Amino acid sequence: VSFTDVHALLHAVQAGDLSIEEAVVCLGELRAAGADIATLDTDRQRRTGQPEAIYGEGKSADDIILILERLHAANQDGMVTRLDDDKAARIQAALSNCEWHPRARILRLPSRTPRTDRAVRGRIAIVAAGTSDLSVAEEAAVVAETYGNPVDRYWDVGVAGIHRLMAHMPAMREASVIIVVAGMEGALASVVSGMVSAPVVAVPTSVGYGASFGGIAALLGMLNSCAAGVTVVNIDNGFGAAVMADRINRRMEDR
Amino acid sequence: VSFTDVHALLHAVQAGDLSIEEAVVCLGELRAAGADIATLDTDRQRRTGQPEAIYGEGKSADDIILILERLHAANQDGMVTRLDDDKAARIQAALSNCEWHPRARILRLPSRTPRTDRAVRGRIAIVAAGTSDLSVAEEAAVVAETYGNPVDRYWDVGVAGIHRLMAHMPAMREASVIIVVAGMEGALASVVSGMVSAPVVAVPTSVGYGASFGGIAALLGMLNSCAAGVTVVNIDNGFGAAVMADRINRRMEDR
Amino acid sequence: VSFTDVHALLHAVQAGDLSIEEAVVCLGELRAAGADIATLDTDRQRRTGQPEAIYGEGKSADDIILILERLHAANQDGMVTRLDDDKAARIQAALSNCEWHPRARILRLPSRTPRTDRAVRGRIAIVAAGTSDLSVAEEAAVVAETYGNPVDRYWDVGVAGIHRLMAHMPAMREASVIIVVAGMEGALASVVSGMVSAPVVAVPTSVGYGASFGGIAALLGMLNSCAAGVTVVNIDNGFGAAVMADRINRRMEDR
Amino acid sequence: VSFTDVHALLHAVQAGDLSIEEAVVCLGELRAAGADIATLDTDRQRRTGQPEAIYGEGKSADDIILILERLHAANQDGMVTRLDDDKAARIQAALSNCEWHPRARILRLPSRTPRTDRAVRGRIAIVAAGTSDLSVAEEAAVVAETYGNPVDRYWDVGVAGIHRLMAHMPAMREASVIIVVAGMEGALASVVSGMVSAPVVAVPTSVGYGASFGGIAALLGMLNSCAAGVTVVNIDNGFGAAVMADRINRRMEDR
Amino acid sequence: VSFTDVHALLHAVQAGDLSIEEAVVCLGELRAAGADIATLDTDRQRRTGQPEAIYGEGKSADDIILILERLHAANQDGMVTRLDDDKAARIQAALSNCEWHPRARILRLPSRTPRTDRAVRGRIAIVAAGTSDLSVAEEAAVVAETYGNPVDRYWDVGVAGIHRLMAHMPAMREASVIIVVAGMEGALASVVSGMVSAPVVAVPTSVGYGASFGGIAALLGMLNSCAAGVTVVNIDNGFGAAVMADRINRRMEDR
Amino acid sequence: VSFTDVHALLHAVQAGDLSIEEAVVCLGELRAAGADIATLDTDRQRRTGQPEAIYGEGKSADDIILILERLHAANQDGMVTRLDDDKAARIQAALSNCEWHPRARILRLPSRTPRTDRAVRGRIAIVAAGTSDLSVAEEAAVVAETYGNPVDRYWDVGVAGIHRLMAHMPAMREASVIIVVAGMEGALASVVSGMVSAPVVAVPTSVGYGASFGGIAALLGMLNSCAAGVTVVNIDNGFGAAVMADRINRRMEDR
Amino acid sequence: VSFTDVHALLHAVQAGDLSIEEAVVCLGELRAAGADIATLDTDRQRRTGQPEAIYGEGKSADDIILILERLHAANQDGMVTRLDDDKAARIQAALSNCEWHPRARILRLPSRTPRTDRAVRGRIAIVAAGTSDLSVAEEAAVVAETYGNPVDRYWDVGVAGIHRLMAHMPAMREASVIIVVAGMEGALASVVSGMVSAPVVAVPTSVGYGASFGGIAALLGMLNSCAAGVTVVNIDNGFGAAVMADRINRRMEDR
Amino acid sequence: VSFTDVHALLHAVQAGDLSIEEAVVCLGELRAAGADIATLDTDRQRRTGQPEAIYGEGKSADDIILILERLHAANQDGMVTRLDDDKAARIQAALSNCEWHPRARILRLPSRTPRTDRAVRGRIAIVAAGTSDLSVAEEAAVVAETYGNPVDRYWDVGVAGIHRLMAHMPAMREASVIIVVAGMEGALASVVSGMVSAPVVAVPTSVGYGASFGGIAALLGMLNSCAAGVTVVNIDNGFGAAVMADRINRRMEDR
Repeated sequence: VSFTDVHALLHAVQAGDLSIEEAVVCLGELRAAGADIATLDTDRQRRTGQPEAIYGEGKSADDIILILERLHAANQDGMVTRLDDDKAARIQAALSNCEWHPRARILRLPSRTPRTDRAVRGRIAIVAAGTSDLSVAEEAAVVAETYGNPVDRYWDVGVAGIHRLMAHMPAMREASVIIVVAGMEGALASVVSGMVSAPVVAVPTSVGYGASFGGIAALLGMLNSCAAGVTVVNIDNGFGAAVMADRINRRMEDR
Repeated sequence: VSFTDVHALLHAVQAGDLSIEEAVVCLGELRAAGADIATLDTDRQRRTGQPEAIYGEGKSADDIILILERLHAANQDGMVTRLDDDKAARIQAALSNCEWHPRARILRLPSRTPRTDRAVRGRIAIVAAGTSDLSVAEEAAVVAETYGNPVDRYWDVGVAGIHRLMAHMPAMREASVIIVVAGMEGALASVVSGMVSAPVVAVPTSVGYGASFGGIAALLGMLNSCAAGVTVVNIDNGFGAAVMADRINRRMEDR
Repeated sequence: VSFTDVHALLHAVQAGDLSIEEAVVCLGELRAAGADIATLDTDRQRRTGQPEAIYGEGKSADDIILILERLHAANQDGMVTRLDDDKAARIQAALSNCEWHPRARILRLPSRTPRTDRAVRGRIAIVAAGTSDLSVAEEAAVVAETYGNPVDRYWDVGVAGIHRLMAHMPAMREASVIIVVAGMEGALASVVSGMVSAPVVAVPTSVGYGASFGGIAALLGMLNSCAAGVTVVNIDNGFGAAVMADRINRRMEDR
Repeated sequence: VSFTDVHALLHAVQAGDLSIEEAVVCLGELRAAGADIATLDTDRQRRTGQPEAIYGEGKSADDIILILERLHAANQDGMVTRLDDDKAARIQAALSNCEWHPRARILRLPSRTPRTDRAVRGRIAIVAAGTSDLSVAEEAAVVAETYGNPVDRYWDVGVAGIHRLMAHMPAMREASVIIVVAGMEGALASVVSGMVSAPVVAVPTSVGYGASFGGIAALLGMLNSCAAGVTVVNIDNGFGAAVMADRINRRMEDR
Repeated sequence: VSFTDVHALLHAVQAGDLSIEEAVVCLGELRAAGADIATLDTDRQRRTGQPEAIYGEGKSADDIILILERLHAANQDGMVTRLDDDKAARIQAALSNCEWHPRARILRLPSRTPRTDRAVRGRIAIVAAGTSDLSVAEEAAVVAETYGNPVDRYWDVGVAGIHRLMAHMPAMREASVIIVVAGMEGALASVVSGMVSAPVVAVPTSVGYGASFGGIAALLGMLNSCAAGVTVVNIDNGFGAAVMADRINRRMEDR
Repeated sequence: VSFTDVHALLHAVQAGDLSIEEAVVCLGELRAAGADIATLDTDRQRRTGQPEAIYGEGKSADDIILILERLHAANQDGMVTRLDDDKAARIQAALSNCEWHPRARILRLPSRTPRTDRAVRGRIAIVAAGTSDLSVAEEAAVVAETYGNPVDRYWDVGVAGIHRLMAHMPAMREASVIIVVAGMEGALASVVSGMVSAPVVAVPTSVGYGASFGGIAALLGMLNSCAAGVTVVNIDNGFGAAVMADRINRRMEDR
Repeated sequence: VSFTDVHALLHAVQAGDLSIEEAVVCLGELRAAGADIATLDTDRQRRTGQPEAIYGEGKSADDIILILERLHAANQDGMVTRLDDDKAARIQAALSNCEWHPRARILRLPSRTPRTDRAVRGRIAIVAAGTSDLSVAEEAAVVAETYGNPVDRYWDVGVAGIHRLMAHMPAMREASVIIVVAGMEGALASVVSGMVSAPVVAVPTSVGYGASFGGIAALLGMLNSCAAGVTVVNIDNGFGAAVMADRINRRMEDR
Repeated sequence: VSFTDVHALLHAVQAGDLSIEEAVVCLGELRAAGADIATLDTDRQRRTGQPEAIYGEGKSADDIILILERLHAANQDGMVTRLDDDKAARIQAALSNCEWHPRARILRLPSRTPRTDRAVRGRIAIVAAGTSDLSVAEEAAVVAETYGNPVDRYWDVGVAGIHRLMAHMPAMREASVIIVVAGMEGALASVVSGMVSAPVVAVPTSVGYGASFGGIAALLGMLNSCAAGVTVVNIDNGFGAAVMADRINRRMEDR
């Protein structure tokens, strides 16, 4: 018998197709070949402030379950992003205690140790241009909250009706960081950044059609913002924006 | 319990999973967090001449229903573009009085107040190069008609057989605006613009294969038209062309 | 002897290198071969409302002089765009009565018949985001004025300081057409279009650096404007925007 | 006489080609037409924390001098970025008290009021991958220092010899923000971000050849960083990175 | 009757729809027209060291079966890459003795002559940045092993946690070639190449989202590696990397 | 009732949902609005040598049936390209006498007048690099044969094993035109063109993976051929190559 | 002493820096190393119908002179394309008997054997859209004439004034091949091809600005022509179009 | 006084503008700020087999001189690539003992310790498609020779005349590595790789025009080679190819 990953091997044991003795031999071979599919980085939280997260797209449900089990065994928080409904259901069937955020497409498997949020944190304002951007905006919001930050959501306040944005401006100015989520031409980032002194993290989304090219138009728009003070993350990368905002917030605490 | 949007919350109430008292609390929390998915711009028609429209792609049927209900409650016209057959059917099942234009992929939910078209309007000519461009051309036509403009349709008159176009030229010259819809190389816009004195709005379509790159070839062709007087909207954006034509037509009325 | 263009032939005559008799023969050969470098379209003004213009980039000063002379002989207005200082100087040396607009890079050689502007025209508002966009904005302004339209200039009112734009909004709303000129992310077009009911013609400029890619960022931004009613011309194409605005203005007059 | 900008008009006055009386009339016409080339945003510092800066590329020396004079008249700091040696020399010849940073290509004209830096600021670490990146890195450094932040420079510590970077890691970890400047594949941002808990602002540079495509390779590399916590500014935009870092630093102070 | 390929013809014979006599005629016509779908290159192994492989994507299961049968008839090894589960199952149903590697998506039909691996071969180290890259990395590993090379697998050792990589460095340095498989920004190739003297073959993967553009970010990152000694194969082309590594290994043997 | 195309109207008549009288009224309205989906170009064959063909992708089966019926009513040949199996089956169910070429994805509905091929025609050689290119190559072959040209097929003779190509060279040299069909890097076109004096028409295919970008690599390769005499058609455009070859062949006959 | 090319060596001999004896040794070393800069393909004319041509861009005048001398020594025609004025002057100074076509940027050094054009040839029509395209169109014309084909030139007949084209149509229809040269959107190719039965070879030019992207807009426009029968060569490649036309013309003769 | 780099400081000392005492203080400040422009990696040769090289483009002559001096002081070989004639002359004026290879654009400053080439090395074959590719090919050749490898040059053997290549094939097959240098469509890499068993390193060059896009066509062609065993380096990166070849050659020696 020949195995290319640990998971298949364990299933074979479970199914009775492989004896314990054989499994031990196979495992040794696998290890010798370095075939463990994932190398956990359990030190990351200490180093960077955030634990490792699992990018769900392109991974099978089986592979994700395996990694979550190993994180849980190490008593670490597990968080999977970019999950579709099907895979989420299969993972929830396999692992109890999962928390599923369908709009944000995030699944969490908390560690056994309850998180103790620190007392005082700056608020993170998350501003989304349109209803179609909400999946990405919610990803940012759920991740930021998971890491212990208070979040204010401002949904559907794009520049086509700029008075909607103006109405929220006094509140937004109080935030320690502002995350702007917008598709199409992404102009919201420039407009916001020209009116505040907070750092602005812009997230282009793939919302749009034709010459939006899956988010390139918004990405370029944000990179070329005529209002300085805007930095940009990858298209649809709500997760990355939340990590940046969390780092800024933690840095303020440290002082 | 935890909700990320109003709609899910209301369904939970409807399903009896949430008491009215709990719902009130949750709603307060949601509002505090700014989680309403859409911020209606009921002032847009006064400001710009056209009411807000809903871009249907990438929104769930549930979200669209919610927005339509709120527009209807405010006695505003509701118009959804880029809808596929499945979502249209689900929305029609939920909301009576919808009007569905399958080729144009537009669904309308008219307000309770009947529209009173103004007496005299210039005609809008819509010229489509090929049969495959009709979905986009019909989107432009239905939107223009919805906003109260008389429309003349010239279908399948591309430059491969230029006599077809020439036959219609005298009639086209009478239009107040001409919308040209073409895929592939988009040459129709240049040829038309060189023969008329009306403003020309060009809509590149994603029709074509290989190196048409989803409409880029037509888009670039129209932007680089050797005949001045052509302006361009996004790929497949029949809606945007109709709004521009409507603005020009209204502006003439105002004078 | 063998000539590839009329101009070289005439210079040879002038220099005494070619007798009149020889020249007549050569001219016949050239004509037979269709080698005249330019085929004037003296009918264009009647057909489209605007006379033919000469795109100056990539043409030699000699070729431009030749074409201007022929237009002048036909008593037509001559207008050359995208001219640099050197070529402009050489043309002015050859042809008296030229008018040179250095910031707009436009040279005009008016016909001998004075233009009689029609009495009443809508005003064209031209809005430029930054000082670096002025060359393109001036091109639009000079062309629009040349065609007989009154122009209002709003310079350096980009969205980084949106109050500058707001201050001019009441005046802008009176325009019959608004031309928005912007580089970088081009957000100005969206913001303006969301606040007016006039048709908006957007001109992306090549102003910016890095990922503006010579104006692509602004072009995409404007094509993807979340505020409908924006149409777009080629990068830096102030001329094309002015032609469109002129067409809209004439159309209004015709009614 | 006809003028398209204030500057030309003033030179005409200076040269005696225009009387004071004529100038007054022309100025009125210019103002009516909105032809002032620049609309100062003297309120920006209050709103966003940073004063307006002048992007020098594509502006003539004359236009820059005019803007600097007006900023100086308003007793504001003037800072010009992306200046080449020639224009810098011409500006310095016209305006005394300028400060010229040749490697950073920044020219400053300080206001008459000395800056009073606040007492305690976090340090900004600026890390550059190679010697060819220094112009951009110095732009970031000079801007950050101009805004009152202490800066630590780590030059030429790219990943081709990763031990060079490791040696500086303990010091870098103390920074409140880290700016990473790199061309070619831009891998330095990922490596740094995986080892620190500070927010990381990445600046892709146009350094490289062939398929670096003027900085696109580094830009994409940084946007796709496998280590979260990286946000990105435009290619070669050291200025924008410094503004972001300054905003983070100020925000910390405010708390 | 009319056939466009041999396979359809043979099925018609099998189904009794075509007599043997008719089939002979049709086959002659087909051959005359050159309609055999594949021209085997049975000499390739002698010339280049590796036998011909079948690229499975875009070929029907029927076409693949036909080619495998003909290779088998010629007693050659058959190897199909980029196969999905469905087609693999259909091929296995038709041809016994197939070997299916699901993660690598490779199906092999060994020749009847057992391979005799040469005694001494350098080891090939295959380093993968993340779990999502394993399909491509396994493709490289299975191909390299099929060609008789010993392979060491280092999975999930990306630069976000660079200590994971450092731990394996002494072992990697012993390899005769190193294959680096990475998506996102592809920084792993630069980091590895800066620490070893072995030739490095980099495989960009299409893992990533947004501005990874299906692997372009990683491809550009690797092509622009600041550490020389990296060469690159096509996106997701684990097969091509293994062929290169095999060629290097054989060349060493030859000496 | 309201109809947007003739077809829907006719189905309503057929289903008894619309009386003949109502239908007549509706048809008049439709015609007035120019809503006929297709404007047949029955003169094309006389003008250009080839009849109009129907591009099947993006058209519904219903629309295609309608157009075929109208062509048939005008006793013209009907040919549909780029058809998938499902739509082909639905069309065949509606229209008898159709001819379906599955590998070429072409459906033909011959006119009632039999074609009389002219006596003497040059042979067209079609050369395909790999088995995956056969669908495109067969499209070229079927179209060329439909237009009355004798075709020689050379399949799977790519440059990876160049002796396969060399073996056929003497025969290929006799062709009046050579069509080269290749994906991946498309090198076959250069190699063939350097060895023959016939005109070469190159068809890039979308075969390949990763950085072939859906055929861009082959397209660019063929456009940049170092061997002159290669001209190129769109990606996967076997149809266009056949039309060009047919034109060359007819031109020879005319002489 | 050490030389990297033959030319440098010969100059050293000429300058007296290298004795004849030393030169003989160095030449032997160079030859052993394969360092001759060019390998003449004197057999090409027999194989493909056209002699080898020299692409002048990126080669030094010295290298071009060396190659021309060697072609002349072999009594072959020499033709250099893409030459600028400076290099042309330096070559003409070194080699007498050169023929320089400045607009076409072609320099010829005819062989000592006079060409004997065959009696009857089809005419090649060359159609150029605008005056700025003439350099490329003349390149095609001069090359076609050099190869013995009669050429008809139709200059400045772009689609902005389509009546100019229509006037020439009866004459164009008689051509054996039509070469269409156009920049901007390249629509001329589609319009011409829809009206003739001759094969059309389209040459996109880099004329245009902004989003013409150096000819990409025209290239894509021509590749996506809605009128079949158009094939395309590289941007600005008048030479390649002429070779294709010459091949078609010769093929007709052969019959 | 304030300095931003060591070099300026030293020049100030030299010019007498700075006393030794002041210089010591400034140097300390500079070092504290990490302002040394370059961090030498003197350990690289031990780690990777090749010493550090200096990429000359975008560095000033002054910066290059400074780095070379420091390498020389450390008794290391200095090699600068991508140098133009002007900078090379200025460096040679400053540093004696430099070796300048003009066609390869490489300048070397050898260390004081003579290199002792190891006895037996495989030969590296370098194959260039055209004369315009020679600058890149020579870069590869000079670097490979500098690192102690015997090199065979095969110049101007592109696939347009494939017999030229065939003639050299027996010799090429003996090489331990083959470097293929080609612009335009880059087909040479595929043709060579299909005929040899040696590893092939392909270098796309920026030679070509129009749609070669500065080497992208060749780059994509080589990445998509239908003949496996080709790996690719950056456009025009002869240096990188030579480093890869050197690594392979050294690895063979080690065994």
